[in-house]
Amino acid sequence: MTRKLVLLRHGQSQWNLENRFTGWVDVDLTEQGRSEAAAGGRLMREEGLRFDVAYTSTLKRAIRTLNLALAELDQDWLPVHKSWRLNERHYGALQGLDKAETAAKHGEEQVKVWRRSYDIPPPPMPLDDPGHPANDPRYAGLDRNALPSTESLATTLDRVLPYWHDAIAPSLKAGKTVLVAAHGNSLRALYKYLNHVSKEEILELNIPTGIPLLFELDDELSVKSYRYLGDPEAARRAAEAVANQGKAR
Amino acid sequence: MTRKLVLLRHGQSQWNLENRFTGWVDVDLTEQGRSEAAAGGRLMREEGLRFDVAYTSTLKRAIRTLNLALAELDQDWLPVHKSWRLNERHYGALQGLDKAETAAKHGEEQVKVWRRSYDIPPPPMPLDDPGHPANDPRYAGLDRNALPSTESLATTLDRVLPYWHDAIAPSLKAGKTVLVAAHGNSLRALYKYLNHVSKEEILELNIPTGIPLLFELDDELSVKSYRYLGDPEAARRAAEAVANQGKAR
Repeated sequence: MTRKLVLLRHGQSQWNLENRFTGWVDVDLTEQGRSEAAAGGRLMREEGLRFDVAYTSTLKRAIRTLNLALAELDQDWLPVHKSWRLNERHYGALQGLDKAETAAKHGEEQVKVWRRSYDIPPPPMPLDDPGHPANDPRYAGLDRNALPSTESLATTLDRVLPYWHDAIAPSLKAGKTVLVAAHGNSLRALYKYLNHVSKEEILELNIPTGIPLLFELDDELSVKSYRYLGDPEAARRAAEAVANQGKAR
Repeated sequence: MTRKLVLLRHGQSQWNLENRFTGWVDVDLTEQGRSEAAAGGRLMREEGLRFDVAYTSTLKRAIRTLNLALAELDQDWLPVHKSWRLNERHYGALQGLDKAETAAKHGEEQVKVWRRSYDIPPPPMPLDDPGHPANDPRYAGLDRNALPSTESLATTLDRVLPYWHDAIAPSLKAGKTVLVAAHGNSLRALYKYLNHVSKEEILELNIPTGIPLLFELDDELSVKSYRYLGDPEAARRAAEAVANQGKAR
């Protein structure tokens, strides 16, 4: 039996547009981001995909992307599970800063290290910062020791993977078709695991926003094939645009 | 400890506007319905309500009402559970018909009986009707014997109440503040149970759309008080409008 999994990265957010480090800050989609989400939903509908369950983060840019896509699929009724483990990488004390502010505060070279290394996290957000997850009611039910003050890509992957094993993989094993709407780095985690990508290569991977990435998996959840839905050239251009956005900031 | 429960009836749908029997047909909100939902969210925000969990039906007019209200509350991240037990009353073979069609097919007097009686259901929808819940993928995980072919108000209440006992009440007992976004008749079921309303009186109850109904409950979930949020005069007029809409069709 072939099992189907779709990864969908949220559309443009307000802070993507303003070139700020977003991380766990709960910013909304832009109008363009909403269009991208709906277009992603239409691509899945045209592919004839029917989902059994969806997973997303606790951040509204992913949740609203999912809701807009489900509306296009006419699957508003789908069970949806929201978990902090699918959140974007926590950007520590850099959250909320734009490129110029960050460079002024920490120096250009240091910022490059944080952006381009696999396992060096930015400075932590202080626990008494009102923006720290430990002070956010949505995480009140969690042990605060589970909540990050900062993350590298490596530690992001470490906290995403338990959710794959505990929630997503069992649904796939049960024969369900699964949609995951999340973020650049939490989706990198799943992509790295599924495709056995090295630390070096995963840093180069840019998943385009709003273009569904369809995996076909075998009974043991090994990847049989994967591809972006719709026009491959459009997916390539969109991935390039995301990569350049990263360079620009 | 005082526990809080809010009941929110979905805003105007396309078929409310067209005066058709909707039941389990999955019609969308109108623009006015979306405005009502957002206004309901703002009333809850102004009341200072912060929810821990939300429940809704499997029908998009209730789900979208909930999503719009959660956006106003800035609580998109809230865990949401969707159940067929909170669906609208199933209107059997009348679903999709408008007033004139129904009267032509079954006679004015008979239609009055179905609309105004507590326990006389309309004729059942045939099991092979493509619109029957047994043929709808969203209910594929359920025993088809659980799915109605038609419902009276009485049988609607009978299938809502287990969800109160199994899902909603345990959350309230655990100290959670709960939001339920649903339909005229599924909310009548909860209202009747909580307020010990007679069969005769519940037929006269018209819950206005988009105006949150806040219950304060004691530790045993007995009602200490209940009221509509916002201007009481606005709630009275809205309930009257809903009642007149019923009479008109």
